[in-house]
Amino acid sequence: MSPLPHSRLRSSGGTPTAPDRLLSVLAAFDHEHPALCLTDISRRAGLSLTTAHRLVGALTEWGALERDESGVYHVGLRLWEVAALAPRGLALRQIALPYLEDLYEATHENVQLAVRDGGEVVYTEWLSGRSAVGVHIRVGARWPLHATGVGLALLAHGDPEFQRAYCAGPLASFTPYTITDPVRLRRVLADVRRTGAAVSDRQVTDDALSVAAPVRGRDGTVAAAVSVVVPHADAAVPALVPAVRLAARGISRALGWRPEDGGVRPGTGPSDR
Amino acid sequence: MSPLPHSRLRSSGGTPTAPDRLLSVLAAFDHEHPALCLTDISRRAGLSLTTAHRLVGALTEWGALERDESGVYHVGLRLWEVAALAPRGLALRQIALPYLEDLYEATHENVQLAVRDGGEVVYTEWLSGRSAVGVHIRVGARWPLHATGVGLALLAHGDPEFQRAYCAGPLASFTPYTITDPVRLRRVLADVRRTGAAVSDRQVTDDALSVAAPVRGRDGTVAAAVSVVVPHADAAVPALVPAVRLAARGISRALGWRPEDGGVRPGTGPSDR
Repeated sequence: MSPLPHSRLRSSGGTPTAPDRLLSVLAAFDHEHPALCLTDISRRAGLSLTTAHRLVGALTEWGALERDESGVYHVGLRLWEVAALAPRGLALRQIALPYLEDLYEATHENVQLAVRDGGEVVYTEWLSGRSAVGVHIRVGARWPLHATGVGLALLAHGDPEFQRAYCAGPLASFTPYTITDPVRLRRVLADVRRTGAAVSDRQVTDDALSVAAPVRGRDGTVAAAVSVVVPHADAAVPALVPAVRLAARGISRALGWRPEDGGVRPGTGPSDR
Repeated sequence: MSPLPHSRLRSSGGTPTAPDRLLSVLAAFDHEHPALCLTDISRRAGLSLTTAHRLVGALTEWGALERDESGVYHVGLRLWEVAALAPRGLALRQIALPYLEDLYEATHENVQLAVRDGGEVVYTEWLSGRSAVGVHIRVGARWPLHATGVGLALLAHGDPEFQRAYCAGPLASFTPYTITDPVRLRRVLADVRRTGAAVSDRQVTDDALSVAAPVRGRDGTVAAAVSVVVPHADAAVPALVPAVRLAARGISRALGWRPEDGGVRPGTGPSDR
Protein backbone atom coordinates (compact mmCIF):
# COMPACT_ATOMS: atom_id res chain seq x y z
CA MET A 1 0.00 0.00 0.00
CA SER A 2 1.51 3.31 -0.93
CA PRO A 3 1.08 6.44 1.12
CA LEU A 4 -1.33 9.15 0.05
CA PRO A 5 -0.12 11.40 -2.70
CA HIS A 6 1.68 14.40 -1.38
CA SER A 7 -0.90 16.92 -0.38
CA ARG A 8 1.27 19.97 -0.77
CA LEU A 9 0.48 20.66 -4.41
CA ARG A 10 0.89 24.18 -5.64
CA SER A 11 -2.60 25.37 -6.29
CA SER A 12 -2.02 28.88 -7.56
CA GLY A 13 -3.46 29.49 -10.98
CA GLY A 14 -0.49 31.43 -12.33
CA THR A 15 2.43 30.28 -14.45
CA PRO A 16 4.98 28.35 -12.41
CA THR A 17 7.87 30.60 -11.50
CA ALA A 18 11.51 29.64 -11.85
CA PRO A 19 11.70 28.56 -8.19
CA ASP A 20 8.51 26.51 -8.65
CA ARG A 21 10.02 24.67 -11.60
CA LEU A 22 13.25 23.87 -9.78
CA LEU A 23 11.41 22.65 -6.71
CA SER A 24 9.10 20.54 -8.87
CA VAL A 25 12.18 18.59 -10.00
CA LEU A 26 12.97 17.79 -6.37
CA ALA A 27 9.33 16.95 -5.72
CA ALA A 28 9.44 14.37 -8.52
CA PHE A 29 11.40 12.12 -6.17
CA ASP A 30 9.53 10.17 -3.51
CA HIS A 31 9.62 6.80 -1.78
CA GLU A 32 8.19 4.99 -4.78
CA HIS A 33 10.54 6.89 -7.09
CA PRO A 34 13.85 7.43 -5.32
CA ALA A 35 15.76 7.16 -8.63
CA LEU A 36 14.59 8.64 -11.92
CA CYS A 37 15.89 9.08 -15.43
CA LEU A 38 15.59 12.48 -17.07
CA THR A 39 12.50 11.53 -19.04
CA ASP A 40 10.68 10.48 -15.90
CA ILE A 41 11.76 13.63 -14.09
CA SER A 42 10.40 15.82 -16.89
CA ARG A 43 7.14 13.92 -16.96
CA ARG A 44 6.60 13.83 -13.19
CA ALA A 45 7.57 17.47 -12.77
CA GLY A 46 5.45 18.57 -15.70
CA LEU A 47 8.35 20.17 -17.53
CA SER A 48 9.64 20.03 -21.07
CA LEU A 49 12.64 17.78 -21.56
CA THR A 50 14.77 20.82 -22.32
CA THR A 51 13.78 22.62 -19.14
CA ALA A 52 14.15 19.48 -17.06
CA HIS A 53 17.60 18.88 -18.51
CA ARG A 54 18.70 22.39 -17.63
CA LEU A 55 17.35 22.28 -14.08
CA VAL A 56 18.62 18.76 -13.44
CA GLY A 57 22.01 19.96 -14.60
CA ALA A 58 21.98 22.87 -12.16
CA LEU A 59 20.86 20.63 -9.29
CA THR A 60 23.49 18.02 -10.13
CA GLU A 61 26.27 20.56 -10.29
CA TRP A 62 25.24 21.90 -6.89
CA GLY A 63 24.98 18.39 -5.47
CA ALA A 64 21.24 18.24 -4.78
CA LEU A 65 21.07 15.41 -7.32
CA GLU A 66 23.61 12.77 -8.24
CA ARG A 67 23.78 10.87 -11.48
CA ASP A 68 24.97 7.30 -11.76
CA GLU A 69 26.66 5.67 -14.72
CA SER A 70 23.41 4.51 -16.28
CA GLY A 71 22.05 8.05 -16.41
CA VAL A 72 19.71 7.61 -13.47
CA TYR A 73 19.43 10.47 -10.97
CA HIS A 74 18.85 10.21 -7.25
CA VAL A 75 18.82 12.73 -4.42
CA GLY A 76 22.32 13.91 -3.64
CA LEU A 77 24.36 13.99 -0.50
CA ARG A 78 24.56 17.79 -0.43
CA LEU A 79 20.80 18.12 -0.17
CA TRP A 80 20.90 15.70 2.70
CA GLU A 81 23.56 17.81 4.43
CA VAL A 82 21.39 20.92 4.24
CA ALA A 83 18.32 18.97 5.27
CA ALA A 84 20.23 17.64 8.28
CA LEU A 85 19.85 21.15 9.69
CA ALA A 86 16.02 20.90 9.80
CA PRO A 87 15.14 21.11 13.50
CA ARG A 88 12.10 18.93 13.14
CA GLY A 89 14.01 16.39 11.10
CA LEU A 90 17.46 15.42 12.12
CA ALA A 91 17.96 17.73 15.10
CA LEU A 92 14.93 16.39 16.93
CA ARG A 93 15.91 12.87 15.99
CA GLN A 94 19.43 13.25 17.36
CA ILE A 95 18.01 14.28 20.72
CA ALA A 96 15.39 11.55 20.72
CA LEU A 97 17.57 8.71 19.49
CA PRO A 98 18.91 7.45 22.83
CA TYR A 99 15.36 7.26 24.19
CA LEU A 100 14.13 5.49 21.07
CA GLU A 101 16.99 3.03 21.40
CA ASP A 102 16.11 2.44 25.04
CA LEU A 103 12.48 1.83 24.08
CA TYR A 104 13.67 -0.62 21.46
CA GLU A 105 15.93 -2.36 23.96
CA ALA A 106 13.07 -2.60 26.45
CA THR A 107 10.48 -3.93 24.02
CA HIS A 108 12.34 -5.26 20.94
CA GLU A 109 9.51 -3.88 18.88
CA ASN A 110 9.41 -1.40 15.99
CA VAL A 111 9.89 2.11 17.38
CA GLN A 112 9.02 5.36 15.58
CA LEU A 113 9.28 9.09 16.08
CA ALA A 114 6.98 11.38 14.11
CA VAL A 115 6.04 15.06 13.80
CA ARG A 116 2.90 16.73 12.55
CA ASP A 117 2.78 18.67 9.31
CA GLY A 118 -0.66 19.95 8.55
CA GLY A 119 -3.10 17.06 8.59
CA GLU A 120 -0.42 14.42 8.38
CA VAL A 121 2.29 12.77 10.40
CA VAL A 122 5.80 12.55 9.03
CA TYR A 123 7.91 9.72 10.43
CA THR A 124 11.36 11.05 11.25
CA GLU A 125 12.86 7.92 12.78
CA TRP A 126 12.24 4.24 12.70
CA LEU A 127 14.09 1.50 14.52
CA SER A 128 12.99 -1.92 13.38
CA GLY A 129 12.24 -4.61 15.90
CA ARG A 130 11.73 -8.29 15.58
CA SER A 131 8.34 -8.27 13.90
CA ALA A 132 7.70 -7.38 10.30
CA VAL A 133 4.56 -5.32 10.87
CA GLY A 134 4.65 -1.62 10.27
CA VAL A 135 6.28 -1.92 6.88
CA HIS A 136 4.18 1.01 5.73
CA ILE A 137 6.30 3.16 7.95
CA ARG A 138 9.42 4.50 6.35
CA VAL A 139 11.49 7.41 7.48
CA GLY A 140 10.16 10.40 5.61
CA ALA A 141 6.79 8.81 4.90
CA ARG A 142 3.54 10.73 5.48
CA TRP A 143 0.25 9.37 6.83
CA PRO A 144 -3.01 10.98 7.96
CA LEU A 145 -3.37 11.90 11.62
CA HIS A 146 -6.52 9.96 12.46
CA ALA A 147 -5.32 6.55 11.38
CA THR A 148 -1.96 6.26 13.12
CA GLY A 149 -1.04 6.05 16.80
CA VAL A 150 1.41 8.94 16.53
CA GLY A 151 -1.17 10.88 14.54
CA LEU A 152 -3.84 10.45 17.21
CA ALA A 153 -1.35 11.53 19.89
CA LEU A 154 -0.49 14.64 17.87
CA LEU A 155 -4.06 15.45 16.88
CA ALA A 156 -5.34 15.10 20.43
CA HIS A 157 -3.01 17.91 21.51
CA GLY A 158 -3.45 20.14 18.50
CA ASP A 159 -5.12 23.51 18.52
CA PRO A 160 -8.85 23.02 19.32
CA GLU A 161 -9.92 24.74 16.10
CA PHE A 162 -7.59 22.51 14.12
CA GLN A 163 -9.02 19.42 15.83
CA ARG A 164 -12.57 20.56 15.08
CA ALA A 165 -11.79 21.14 11.42
CA TYR A 166 -9.92 17.86 11.10
CA CYS A 167 -12.68 15.81 12.72
CA ALA A 168 -15.20 17.39 10.37
CA GLY A 169 -13.56 15.20 7.76
CA PRO A 170 -13.34 13.70 5.29
CA LEU A 171 -11.57 10.87 7.10
CA ALA A 172 -9.91 8.42 4.72
CA SER A 173 -10.07 4.73 5.57
CA PHE A 174 -7.39 2.13 5.05
CA THR A 175 -8.84 -0.94 6.73
CA PRO A 176 -12.29 -1.84 8.06
CA TYR A 177 -11.06 -0.63 11.46
CA THR A 178 -10.00 2.87 10.46
CA ILE A 179 -11.93 5.49 12.44
CA THR A 180 -14.01 7.44 9.95
CA ASP A 181 -16.80 8.64 12.24
CA PRO A 182 -16.12 12.15 13.58
CA VAL A 183 -18.03 11.51 16.83
CA ARG A 184 -16.02 8.39 17.55
CA LEU A 185 -12.80 10.20 16.64
CA ARG A 186 -13.48 13.02 19.07
CA ARG A 187 -14.15 10.46 21.80
CA VAL A 188 -10.88 8.69 21.02
CA LEU A 189 -8.99 11.99 21.17
CA ALA A 190 -10.47 12.74 24.59
CA ASP A 191 -9.31 9.27 25.72
CA VAL A 192 -5.82 10.04 24.44
CA ARG A 193 -5.68 13.17 26.56
CA ARG A 194 -7.10 11.35 29.57
CA THR A 195 -4.76 8.36 29.46
CA GLY A 196 -1.64 10.03 28.05
CA ALA A 197 -1.36 7.49 25.24
CA ALA A 198 -3.00 6.59 21.93
CA VAL A 199 -3.71 3.08 20.72
CA SER A 200 -4.37 2.60 17.03
CA ASP A 201 -5.56 -0.91 16.37
CA ARG A 202 -5.39 -2.21 12.80
CA GLN A 203 -6.28 1.22 11.40
CA VAL A 204 -3.52 1.34 8.79
CA THR A 205 -2.84 -2.32 8.07
CA ASP A 206 -5.00 -5.12 9.38
CA ASP A 207 -2.24 -6.83 11.28
CA ALA A 208 -0.59 -4.00 13.21
CA LEU A 209 -1.36 -2.14 16.41
CA SER A 210 0.49 0.94 17.56
CA VAL A 211 0.83 2.53 20.98
CA ALA A 212 1.90 6.16 20.94
CA ALA A 213 2.53 9.02 23.37
CA PRO A 214 3.09 12.76 22.84
CA VAL A 215 6.46 14.44 23.18
CA ARG A 216 6.48 17.98 24.55
CA GLY A 217 8.97 20.71 23.84
CA ARG A 218 10.47 23.39 25.99
CA ASP A 219 7.36 25.54 25.81
CA GLY A 220 5.09 22.67 26.85
CA THR A 221 3.42 22.23 23.49
CA VAL A 222 3.40 18.85 21.82
CA ALA A 223 6.31 18.72 19.38
CA ALA A 224 6.31 15.09 18.27
CA ALA A 225 5.09 11.62 19.14
CA VAL A 226 6.75 8.28 19.85
CA SER A 227 5.23 4.90 19.17
CA VAL A 228 5.82 1.19 19.02
CA VAL A 229 4.13 -0.85 16.35
CA VAL A 230 3.46 -4.51 17.12
CA PRO A 231 1.50 -7.36 15.59
CA HIS A 232 -2.12 -6.90 16.61
CA ALA A 233 -2.37 -10.48 17.80
CA ASP A 234 0.51 -10.27 20.27
CA ALA A 235 -0.16 -6.79 21.47
CA ALA A 236 0.46 -6.45 25.20
CA VAL A 237 -1.02 -2.99 25.34
CA PRO A 238 -1.05 -2.62 29.15
CA ALA A 239 2.66 -3.36 29.16
CA LEU A 240 3.50 -1.11 26.25
CA VAL A 241 1.67 2.04 27.33
CA PRO A 242 3.89 2.84 30.34
CA ALA A 243 7.06 2.16 28.37
CA VAL A 244 6.04 4.39 25.48
CA ARG A 245 4.93 7.15 27.84
CA LEU A 246 8.22 6.95 29.67
CA ALA A 247 10.20 7.24 26.45
CA ALA A 248 8.08 10.22 25.42
CA ARG A 249 8.65 11.94 28.74
CA GLY A 250 12.38 11.30 28.49
CA ILE A 251 12.56 12.94 25.09
CA SER A 252 10.40 15.79 26.37
CA ARG A 253 12.76 16.46 29.25
CA ALA A 254 15.71 16.33 26.86
CA LEU A 255 13.96 18.99 24.79
CA GLY A 256 13.69 21.18 27.88
CA TRP A 257 10.19 20.36 29.05
CA ARG A 258 9.60 20.60 32.78
CA PRO A 259 6.29 19.21 33.99
CA GLU A 260 6.36 21.48 37.03
CA ASP A 261 6.38 24.48 34.70
CA GLY A 262 2.73 23.86 33.95
CA GLY A 263 2.95 21.02 31.49
CA VAL A 264 -0.54 19.77 30.76
CA ARG A 265 -1.31 16.57 32.58
CA PRO A 266 -3.56 13.90 31.07
CA GLY A 267 -7.22 14.70 31.44
CA THR A 268 -6.96 18.45 31.14
CA GLY A 269 -6.98 19.02 27.40
CA PRO A 270 -8.91 22.01 26.09
CA SER A 271 -11.89 19.99 24.94
CA ASP A 272 -12.28 18.15 28.21
CA ARG A 273 -13.35 21.09 30.35
CA MET B 1 36.72 24.42 16.10
CA SER B 2 34.46 24.81 13.12
CA PRO B 3 34.70 22.66 10.03
CA LEU B 4 36.30 23.98 6.85
CA PRO B 5 34.14 26.27 4.75
CA HIS B 6 32.15 24.38 2.20
CA SER B 7 34.37 23.73 -0.77
CA ARG B 8 31.67 23.44 -3.37
CA LEU B 9 31.53 27.08 -4.40
CA ARG B 10 30.22 27.87 -7.82
CA SER B 11 33.24 29.04 -9.72
CA SER B 12 31.80 29.89 -13.12
CA GLY B 13 32.37 33.47 -14.15
CA GLY B 14 28.90 34.06 -15.54
CA THR B 15 25.87 35.68 -13.94
CA PRO B 16 24.19 33.37 -11.45
CA THR B 17 21.18 31.74 -13.01
CA ALA B 18 17.78 31.48 -11.35
CA PRO B 19 18.54 27.96 -10.07
CA ASP B 20 21.90 29.19 -8.72
CA ARG B 21 20.21 31.95 -6.78
CA LEU B 22 17.62 29.65 -5.26
CA LEU B 23 20.23 27.11 -4.26
CA SER B 24 22.41 29.82 -2.77
CA VAL B 25 19.60 30.52 -0.31
CA LEU B 26 19.73 26.89 0.82
CA ALA B 27 23.50 27.01 0.95
CA ALA B 28 23.32 29.96 3.35
CA PHE B 29 22.35 27.51 6.06
CA ASP B 30 25.05 25.44 7.72
CA HIS B 31 25.93 24.00 11.13
CA GLU B 32 27.04 27.35 12.45
CA HIS B 33 23.97 29.02 10.94
CA PRO B 34 21.04 26.63 11.17
CA ALA B 35 18.60 29.52 11.68
CA LEU B 36 18.78 32.82 9.82
CA CYS B 37 16.74 35.97 9.47
CA LEU B 38 16.05 37.33 6.01
CA THR B 39 18.80 39.93 6.21
CA ASP B 40 21.40 37.30 7.03
CA ILE B 41 20.13 35.04 4.26
CA SER B 42 20.44 37.82 1.69
CA ARG B 43 23.93 38.66 2.89
CA ARG B 44 25.22 35.09 3.07
CA ALA B 45 23.68 34.18 -0.27
CA GLY B 46 24.95 37.36 -1.94
CA LEU B 47 21.47 38.45 -3.01
CA SER B 48 19.55 41.70 -2.80
CA LEU B 49 16.99 41.82 0.00
CA THR B 50 14.20 41.89 -2.59
CA THR B 51 15.46 38.79 -4.38
CA ALA B 52 16.12 36.96 -1.13
CA HIS B 53 12.63 37.80 0.06
CA ARG B 54 11.09 36.42 -3.10
CA LEU B 55 13.12 33.22 -3.07
CA VAL B 56 12.69 32.65 0.65
CA GLY B 57 8.97 33.04 0.11
CA ALA B 58 8.94 30.41 -2.61
CA LEU B 59 11.02 28.02 -0.51
CA THR B 60 8.81 28.57 2.54
CA GLU B 61 5.63 27.98 0.59
CA TRP B 62 7.07 24.72 -0.74
CA GLY B 63 8.25 23.70 2.70
CA ALA B 64 12.00 23.74 2.13
CA LEU B 65 12.21 26.49 4.74
CA GLU B 66 10.07 27.17 7.79
CA ARG B 67 9.61 30.48 9.53
CA ASP B 68 9.10 30.85 13.24
CA GLU B 69 7.18 33.56 15.06
CA SER B 70 10.20 35.80 15.44
CA GLY B 71 10.82 35.86 11.70
CA VAL B 72 13.74 33.47 11.79
CA TYR B 73 13.97 30.83 9.07
CA HIS B 74 15.33 27.31 9.37
CA VAL B 75 15.45 24.34 7.06
CA GLY B 76 12.03 22.79 6.63
CA LEU B 77 10.68 19.34 7.13
CA ARG B 78 9.79 18.89 3.46
CA LEU B 79 13.38 19.33 2.40
CA TRP B 80 14.33 16.70 4.91
CA GLU B 81 11.71 14.34 3.45
CA VAL B 82 13.19 14.67 -0.02
CA ALA B 83 16.71 14.40 1.32
CA ALA B 84 15.73 11.22 3.14
CA LEU B 85 15.73 9.62 -0.30
CA ALA B 86 19.47 10.25 -0.81
CA PRO B 87 21.04 6.79 -1.06
CA ARG B 88 24.30 7.89 0.46
CA GLY B 89 22.54 9.73 3.25
CA LEU B 90 19.60 8.14 4.92
CA ALA B 91 19.30 4.94 2.88
CA LEU B 92 22.84 3.85 3.63
CA ARG B 93 22.37 4.84 7.23
CA GLN B 94 19.20 2.82 7.61
CA ILE B 95 21.05 -0.28 6.42
CA ALA B 96 24.08 0.42 8.56
CA LEU B 97 22.27 1.41 11.74
CA PRO B 98 21.91 -2.03 13.35
CA TYR B 99 25.64 -2.67 12.88
CA LEU B 100 26.52 0.75 14.26
CA GLU B 101 24.30 0.06 17.24
CA ASP B 102 26.00 -3.28 17.77
CA LEU B 103 29.40 -1.59 17.62
CA TYR B 104 28.19 0.91 20.17
CA GLU B 105 26.85 -1.84 22.40
CA ALA B 106 30.15 -3.71 22.17
CA THR B 107 32.40 -0.73 22.88
CA HIS B 108 30.22 2.01 24.44
CA GLU B 109 32.26 4.49 22.45
CA ASN B 110 31.30 7.15 19.91
CA VAL B 111 30.45 5.46 16.62
CA GLN B 112 30.32 7.13 13.21
CA LEU B 113 29.46 6.34 9.62
CA ALA B 114 30.83 8.53 6.84
CA VAL B 115 30.99 8.74 3.05
CA ARG B 116 33.43 10.45 0.73
CA ASP B 117 32.52 13.50 -1.29
CA GLY B 118 35.42 14.83 -3.27
CA GLY B 119 38.33 15.47 -0.92
CA GLU B 120 36.20 15.35 2.20
CA VAL B 121 34.32 12.96 4.42
CA VAL B 122 30.71 13.64 5.28
CA TYR B 123 29.50 12.07 8.53
CA THR B 124 26.11 10.51 7.94
CA GLU B 125 25.56 8.94 11.35
CA TRP B 126 26.85 9.41 14.82
CA LEU B 127 25.96 7.48 17.94
CA SER B 128 27.42 9.05 21.04
CA GLY B 129 29.16 6.93 23.60
CA ARG B 130 30.28 7.60 27.12
CA SER B 131 33.18 9.91 26.36
CA ALA B 132 32.90 13.49 25.23
CA VAL B 133 35.64 13.39 22.60
CA GLY B 134 34.74 13.66 18.98
CA VAL B 135 32.53 16.70 19.51
CA HIS B 136 33.76 18.01 16.17
CA ILE B 137 31.77 15.27 14.56
CA ARG B 138 28.20 16.15 13.81
CA VAL B 139 25.89 14.44 11.40
CA GLY B 140 26.24 16.28 8.12
CA ALA B 141 29.62 17.75 9.01
CA ARG B 142 32.50 17.68 6.51
CA TRP B 143 36.19 17.10 7.23
CA PRO B 144 39.24 16.52 5.03
CA LEU B 145 40.17 12.95 4.20
CA HIS B 146 43.73 12.89 5.48
CA ALA B 147 43.00 13.95 9.04
CA THR B 148 40.19 11.61 10.05
CA GLY B 149 40.10 7.84 10.54
CA VAL B 150 37.15 7.43 8.19
CA GLY B 151 38.85 9.74 5.73
CA LEU B 152 42.04 7.68 5.71
CA ALA B 153 40.00 4.50 5.22
CA LEU B 154 38.17 6.08 2.28
CA LEU B 155 41.24 7.69 0.75
CA ALA B 156 43.28 4.48 0.95
CA HIS B 157 40.74 2.78 -1.30
CA GLY B 158 40.13 5.63 -3.67
CA ASP B 159 41.11 5.70 -7.32
CA PRO B 160 44.95 5.69 -7.54
CA GLU B 161 44.99 8.91 -9.55
CA PHE B 162 42.77 10.56 -6.96
CA GLN B 163 45.07 9.39 -4.17
CA ARG B 164 48.11 10.72 -6.02
CA ALA B 165 46.49 14.11 -6.54
CA TYR B 166 45.26 14.30 -2.98
CA CYS B 167 48.61 13.40 -1.46
CA ALA B 168 50.25 16.08 -3.57
CA GLY B 169 48.55 18.46 -1.18
CA PRO B 170 48.10 20.95 0.25
CA LEU B 171 47.30 19.06 3.42
CA ALA B 172 45.68 21.23 6.07
CA SER B 173 46.71 20.69 9.68
CA PHE B 174 44.51 20.88 12.75
CA THR B 175 46.83 19.74 15.51
CA PRO B 176 50.59 19.17 15.76
CA TYR B 177 49.88 15.52 14.93
CA THR B 178 48.00 16.03 11.67
CA ILE B 179 49.78 14.28 8.80
CA THR B 180 50.87 16.99 6.39
CA ASP B 181 53.81 15.20 4.75
CA PRO B 182 52.80 13.50 1.47
CA VAL B 183 55.41 10.76 1.83
CA ARG B 184 54.19 9.89 5.30
CA LEU B 185 50.58 10.01 4.14
CA ARG B 186 51.20 7.55 1.33
CA ARG B 187 52.88 5.19 3.78
CA VAL B 188 49.91 5.45 6.15
CA LEU B 189 47.53 4.71 3.30
CA ALA B 190 49.50 1.60 2.39
CA ASP B 191 49.27 0.51 6.04
CA VAL B 192 45.52 1.03 5.94
CA ARG B 193 45.23 -1.30 2.98
CA ARG B 194 47.55 -3.83 4.58
CA THR B 195 45.83 -3.97 7.97
CA GLY B 196 42.24 -3.30 6.92
CA ALA B 197 41.87 -0.42 9.36
CA ALA B 198 42.93 3.19 9.80
CA VAL B 199 44.02 4.76 13.06
CA SER B 200 43.99 8.55 13.27
CA ASP B 201 45.68 9.67 16.47
CA ARG B 202 45.01 13.23 17.64
CA GLN B 203 44.95 14.50 14.07
CA VAL B 204 41.72 16.50 14.40
CA THR B 205 41.61 17.35 18.09
CA ASP B 206 44.48 16.69 20.45
CA ASP B 207 42.54 14.41 22.71
CA ALA B 208 40.82 12.00 20.36
CA LEU B 209 41.86 8.89 18.50
CA SER B 210 39.74 7.18 15.89
CA VAL B 211 39.83 3.66 14.52
CA ALA B 212 38.10 3.21 11.17
CA ALA B 213 37.45 0.52 8.56
CA PRO B 214 36.13 0.65 5.01
CA VAL B 215 32.62 -0.45 4.05
CA ARG B 216 32.23 -2.07 0.62
CA GLY B 217 29.18 -2.04 -1.59
CA ARG B 218 27.66 -4.62 -3.83
CA ASP B 219 30.21 -4.02 -6.55
CA GLY B 220 33.14 -4.38 -4.18
CA THR B 221 34.15 -0.72 -4.19
CA VAL B 222 34.45 1.14 -0.92
CA ALA B 223 31.18 2.97 -0.32
CA ALA B 224 31.64 4.34 3.21
CA ALA B 225 33.64 3.96 6.39
CA VAL B 226 32.81 3.19 10.02
CA SER B 227 34.79 4.40 13.01
CA VAL B 228 34.88 4.69 16.74
CA VAL B 229 36.33 7.79 18.33
CA VAL B 230 37.83 7.44 21.81
CA PRO B 231 39.94 9.52 24.17
CA HIS B 232 43.53 9.19 23.05
CA ALA B 233 44.69 8.35 26.52
CA ASP B 234 42.40 5.35 26.97
CA ALA B 235 42.63 4.04 23.47
CA ALA B 236 42.74 0.26 23.37
CA VAL B 237 43.55 0.17 19.69
CA PRO B 238 44.30 -3.57 19.44
CA ALA B 239 40.86 -4.28 20.91
CA LEU B 240 39.02 -1.75 18.78
CA VAL B 241 40.41 -2.69 15.37
CA PRO B 242 38.75 -6.11 15.10
CA ALA B 243 35.42 -4.77 16.35
CA VAL B 244 35.38 -1.90 13.88
CA ARG B 245 36.43 -4.20 11.03
CA LEU B 246 33.66 -6.60 11.95
CA ALA B 247 31.04 -3.87 11.94
CA ALA B 248 32.31 -2.65 8.56
CA ARG B 249 32.12 -6.14 7.10
CA GLY B 250 28.61 -6.58 8.47
CA ILE B 251 27.42 -3.41 6.78
CA SER B 252 29.23 -4.44 3.60
CA ARG B 253 27.42 -7.77 3.51
CA ALA B 254 24.13 -5.99 4.16
CA LEU B 255 24.88 -3.83 1.11
CA GLY B 256 25.37 -6.94 -0.97
CA TRP B 257 29.13 -7.36 -0.82
CA ARG B 258 30.40 -10.91 -1.07
CA PRO B 259 34.10 -11.37 -0.30
CA GLU B 260 34.26 -14.48 -2.41
CA ASP B 261 33.19 -12.43 -5.44
CA GLY B 262 36.64 -10.95 -5.57
CA GLY B 263 36.49 -8.39 -2.84
CA VAL B 264 39.91 -6.93 -2.33
CA ARG B 265 41.66 -8.28 0.73
CA PRO B 266 44.00 -6.18 2.86
CA GLY B 267 47.44 -5.87 1.37
CA THR B 268 46.44 -5.91 -2.26
CA GLY B 269 45.61 -2.28 -2.99
CA PRO B 270 46.67 -0.86 -6.34
CA SER B 271 49.63 1.02 -4.96
CA ASP B 272 51.04 -1.95 -3.09
CA ARG B 273 52.04 -4.05 -6.11
